[in-house]
Amino acid sequence: MKRIGMLTSGGDCQALNAAMRGVAKSLFNSGEKVEIYGFENGYQGLIYSKFRMLTGRDFSGILTKGGTMLGTSRTPFKTIREPDAEGLDKVQAMKQTYYKLQLDCLVILGGNGTHKTANLLHEEGLNVVTLPKTIDNDIWGTDMTFGFQSAVDIATTAIDQIHTTAASHSRVFIVEVMGHKAGWLTLNAGMAGGADIILIPEIPYDIDHVVQKIEERDQGGSSFTIIAVAEGAISKEDAELSKKEYKKKLAKRPYPSVSYEIAAEIQKRSGREVRVTIPGHVQRGGAPCPYDRVFASRLGAEAGRMILEGKYGYMVGYKNREMVRVPLKEVAGKLKMVSPDAAIVKQAEMLGISFGE
Amino acid sequence: MKRIGMLTSGGDCQALNAAMRGVAKSLFNSGEKVEIYGFENGYQGLIYSKFRMLTGRDFSGILTKGGTMLGTSRTPFKTIREPDAEGLDKVQAMKQTYYKLQLDCLVILGGNGTHKTANLLHEEGLNVVTLPKTIDNDIWGTDMTFGFQSAVDIATTAIDQIHTTAASHSRVFIVEVMGHKAGWLTLNAGMAGGADIILIPEIPYDIDHVVQKIEERDQGGSSFTIIAVAEGAISKEDAELSKKEYKKKLAKRPYPSVSYEIAAEIQKRSGREVRVTIPGHVQRGGAPCPYDRVFASRLGAEAGRMILEGKYGYMVGYKNREMVRVPLKEVAGKLKMVSPDAAIVKQAEMLGISFGE
Amino acid sequence: MKRIGMLTSGGDCQALNAAMRGVAKSLFNSGEKVEIYGFENGYQGLIYSKFRMLTGRDFSGILTKGGTMLGTSRTPFKTIREPDAEGLDKVQAMKQTYYKLQLDCLVILGGNGTHKTANLLHEEGLNVVTLPKTIDNDIWGTDMTFGFQSAVDIATTAIDQIHTTAASHSRVFIVEVMGHKAGWLTLNAGMAGGADIILIPEIPYDIDHVVQKIEERDQGGSSFTIIAVAEGAISKEDAELSKKEYKKKLAKRPYPSVSYEIAAEIQKRSGREVRVTIPGHVQRGGAPCPYDRVFASRLGAEAGRMILEGKYGYMVGYKNREMVRVPLKEVAGKLKMVSPDAAIVKQAEMLGISFGE
Amino acid sequence: MKRIGMLTSGGDCQALNAAMRGVAKSLFNSGEKVEIYGFENGYQGLIYSKFRMLTGRDFSGILTKGGTMLGTSRTPFKTIREPDAEGLDKVQAMKQTYYKLQLDCLVILGGNGTHKTANLLHEEGLNVVTLPKTIDNDIWGTDMTFGFQSAVDIATTAIDQIHTTAASHSRVFIVEVMGHKAGWLTLNAGMAGGADIILIPEIPYDIDHVVQKIEERDQGGSSFTIIAVAEGAISKEDAELSKKEYKKKLAKRPYPSVSYEIAAEIQKRSGREVRVTIPGHVQRGGAPCPYDRVFASRLGAEAGRMILEGKYGYMVGYKNREMVRVPLKEVAGKLKMVSPDAAIVKQAEMLGISFGE
Repeated sequence: MKRIGMLTSGGDCQALNAAMRGVAKSLFNSGEKVEIYGFENGYQGLIYSKFRMLTGRDFSGILTKGGTMLGTSRTPFKTIREPDAEGLDKVQAMKQTYYKLQLDCLVILGGNGTHKTANLLHEEGLNVVTLPKTIDNDIWGTDMTFGFQSAVDIATTAIDQIHTTAASHSRVFIVEVMGHKAGWLTLNAGMAGGADIILIPEIPYDIDHVVQKIEERDQGGSSFTIIAVAEGAISKEDAELSKKEYKKKLAKRPYPSVSYEIAAEIQKRSGREVRVTIPGHVQRGGAPCPYDRVFASRLGAEAGRMILEGKYGYMVGYKNREMVRVPLKEVAGKLKMVSPDAAIVKQAEMLGISFGE
Repeated sequence: MKRIGMLTSGGDCQALNAAMRGVAKSLFNSGEKVEIYGFENGYQGLIYSKFRMLTGRDFSGILTKGGTMLGTSRTPFKTIREPDAEGLDKVQAMKQTYYKLQLDCLVILGGNGTHKTANLLHEEGLNVVTLPKTIDNDIWGTDMTFGFQSAVDIATTAIDQIHTTAASHSRVFIVEVMGHKAGWLTLNAGMAGGADIILIPEIPYDIDHVVQKIEERDQGGSSFTIIAVAEGAISKEDAELSKKEYKKKLAKRPYPSVSYEIAAEIQKRSGREVRVTIPGHVQRGGAPCPYDRVFASRLGAEAGRMILEGKYGYMVGYKNREMVRVPLKEVAGKLKMVSPDAAIVKQAEMLGISFGE
Repeated sequence: MKRIGMLTSGGDCQALNAAMRGVAKSLFNSGEKVEIYGFENGYQGLIYSKFRMLTGRDFSGILTKGGTMLGTSRTPFKTIREPDAEGLDKVQAMKQTYYKLQLDCLVILGGNGTHKTANLLHEEGLNVVTLPKTIDNDIWGTDMTFGFQSAVDIATTAIDQIHTTAASHSRVFIVEVMGHKAGWLTLNAGMAGGADIILIPEIPYDIDHVVQKIEERDQGGSSFTIIAVAEGAISKEDAELSKKEYKKKLAKRPYPSVSYEIAAEIQKRSGREVRVTIPGHVQRGGAPCPYDRVFASRLGAEAGRMILEGKYGYMVGYKNREMVRVPLKEVAGKLKMVSPDAAIVKQAEMLGISFGE
Repeated sequence: MKRIGMLTSGGDCQALNAAMRGVAKSLFNSGEKVEIYGFENGYQGLIYSKFRMLTGRDFSGILTKGGTMLGTSRTPFKTIREPDAEGLDKVQAMKQTYYKLQLDCLVILGGNGTHKTANLLHEEGLNVVTLPKTIDNDIWGTDMTFGFQSAVDIATTAIDQIHTTAASHSRVFIVEVMGHKAGWLTLNAGMAGGADIILIPEIPYDIDHVVQKIEERDQGGSSFTIIAVAEGAISKEDAELSKKEYKKKLAKRPYPSVSYEIAAEIQKRSGREVRVTIPGHVQRGGAPCPYDRVFASRLGAEAGRMILEGKYGYMVGYKNREMVRVPLKEVAGKLKMVSPDAAIVKQAEMLGISFGE
């Protein structure tokens, strides 16, 4: 008999339900008796003991559903050791819920922030298995995260749609893609959408080179240009600031996002009309793409296997096309970034894409 | 022998190419000898005599392509009688191009602004046939415009995608849909996406009623709310201002768009977190949906028939499921708005949708 | 207080759930006390008294879901007066269930067969309101049925996908589209997908004209041809047979469907390789398109209005952009076919599409 | 100065154009002078010297287009050494075209059959670089082929659409997915679509186990079952036949495909109604998915790099997330199959999927 707690934490994304279904099906099909408790709204449910027992029926028909049937919330790691408004010790409260329900293990689905708390709980003695969820694909220790490919599909569709308008109106168009820290999503959607310029946090841009690329295209007979910009794109000058200085500068920035700043700079230097489109939250919503459904299901099955084997303290990751078990302490607090020397970046450059360097 | 000039003007949308293909195919297949000249970038091409001859090959394979192969631009009607920077009389220049090419007719595809200029050219003695293009579906004299259903599809997909995130995070989400003057697109996408509140220019909203609806949903156990807001949504107070006063107020509004104002007001009154998503230009791009492809092709064929019959001075419209010929002077300068008493509005209310009234 | 029975009958299609949600929401929001009983698997549930009470929760989140949450089945009208295997009088059994539950009204969603039985029940004294469901759009008394536009979208996507292969391989490709009796779906999907030849039941084809069109295209430099064929397409010779003779001939036909017969004939006459693709049941499945969601919701709301007004014996239809009430006896047993002289057919011909006449 | 010949051979698939664009862009952007000659319809163009010079304009806007702009054909390897109908030596003819055009290299995009001929040409002394194209993902030496993920998306959509109908009608539904020899496509689409049973060539099925799974589902309250069947699925008994015997048996099989045989067997043993849907050629058509666009572009860039380095005789492959160069003789004549012990198969079984074993 196994008693499992399950929760999803952080921003929602596609295939969370598919992953949970994978865990549940592999456990229910194992022959062993299993009870699964779903906590509501991420760690909040664990802290405040809000949960419900989940049966096979709860996991039926959710493979293709976006979002998370458990709800989610962001519980900042920074303040996890601080008491809540009522004076409650959050970490102790989570442990109490765990022990009260006599859980054998917590299955936690989340991104970078989530993994810090998951590791903390593991260090506090709880059995934890995690699954790498994020549209950013920036979790250390795994080649891929679920949600990513679905988000690539949506962001690419946005670029495709902008393409026809940009071409018809001979305009420069910026499509702002999600990703404050890592550029994977922008890089892939940009390449898939045929963007001419891709600006990502890992490769600070020089606005003059951006303008130069636009003008080269113009001279080559292409009257429009598509720029895919990550939310966290940064100029070379700003990249040289200290983190603190940059934050200060950002706070005073007269633009709602970096894309508008880039648009204004291009307009100033080239006189060209620049339009900005920000698909925003749509990138994390809707049905998961087939790739994510398969991938999340497989990760879920592997999490089930770990639980059946009684192996805890790991994230299920995917390295070189194999499922791997990554110790939580190795995952927590690290990010997987795009290297400016990565093969995919070099290939993009060969295709004529400018990173504004 | 017929010599036809063709141009697309105003914001681009889906099925412009399909419509032009419809005109061309019906003319080329008619047995009559036909030459088609395509003007670049809207009226600019007509003014400055930028054109190319189009053959069957140009119209092949474009049925499913978004944008316009001729390019487009906005030529403001207000200043059409004013000379350009070089002192050129724009209206005379258009007439000269027309006569120089010995055209029998101009086929003009565009929205409301475009139709004013088209009517002017007709009044100046040119033969003109027009086709109703706009994602807003606000052209007077026709039940439907091409581009509209494609835009509904895209805006609905955005709402669908937001739905899963809103539900997972128990949030209020605003999706801002295109439409400065008419609410057709927001109304249809809102109903298709299952929005709980729909705010359109034709039905000024009371923010207290918006908040009340959110709270009713909350009490009914629905922790999230989706609001579809047209770009031109307006509050009851603002609707009572004169046009001039409102413009002045808008200029000072500390928000990038009405959605952010509504979000701030809800947050202020209810303490709830509200997120705004603005799909923006993606709504007019990408491949036309099957409905628009058929509809635009049919309109194009009817335009071809009119040209073969030598009937000029009309827009091809669609009324009560029949193709009709609407005199240009009746179309120009009028808008087709959503009536607050329209059956679709009443039905939406029966479904529980609030218009914030 | 109103007690309503609800059932879906015949082949499933998109937007059945949306329509039922429309009925339920409009009733639940009316202020009146309403109970809704859902019968399982069409008339079977009514005959054998299989039902469950449906609450607001049952209708939540189903707007975008394909299929029918009540299940459906085909109950042949021809044998409705015959006792079942156990000797049960089916019509009496349905009446008994109705009276036992003290229903005020039955809401029945279905196509042509379903309407015959619905009319019978109405003639037997039950209160009945119906909604026009079918991907075939062949229900008499309404310009549109829900499911149709969704099916057009799917069939068009299939033609789009075949297009690239046909062009790459210089092949003749037949896409067989659903529709045994009416050609609306094939006609619209064919036009939207850019088919070169469209064969529908209402316009018998001459295989020589089909081959001629293929050869004309070849001579014009188009090495491939797309043919959209309705399931019920019929040759001129076969169309002259009596119904009985034709059935006899069909029974002996050495091909699984008319498409294969046409393919074989083309191959025989022209030596060309012809491929057949039959998307089949996918055309009636998956999420409803935005058009159908809005349309089905509106029809549902109007059904709700009729029930609140106590008007029974009608199908909710849509004529000239207005919701109308069509007496059931006018609907039952009639079909709405494509007229060979319809404007849309003539426009298709102007576009160069051959109907094989 | 480099002179490159390019051709696509075998069945078309998505992202062929994207891959060719990748090759061309990387060469044109390299600074070196490059001429690219495109051969029409696969090896036919090389044999009969049908080609055209391709410029940057030819490669513009094709990233998202399905099919192949060069056309393709199947040239059977078995008869490549035999003279054609006119007595022409095909291999010599290809070499002559190559030398006449003074080519530095041939870029050949194709699947398994194509690679045999490519290897032959390489052995005959021509410089050859190949790219792995197939929706089957069965090319030896690479973890992934382009076309595969796009086909997974389409086949999954078909299963999704069938799902709603199967559930509404309580039916057993078979979806036949492409793949005569390898089961990758069926396996992935089946898992993504939530199929209950997946039958692939690599794991011969026992029809009794298939029926047993259907009945288990029935007893568990699931009245419908989805079976994803690869074109090349085979029963245990048939798998034990010699290749010759099996071919003989197939020739006499009274069913158009294995799916109909399986349907008949299930019907016979369980009395259940079984429906078959065969999406067919749609699986290889339409726009490539974003994954394939990026992947094919990257492969193309690597092919460009190889040409610039003067490295010939290799296929560009992808192993463990790195681009690799696989000697043609290692690729030719081998297939990459699903191992019954593969992790993905075991995970699928953990999820409750039956392979009919």
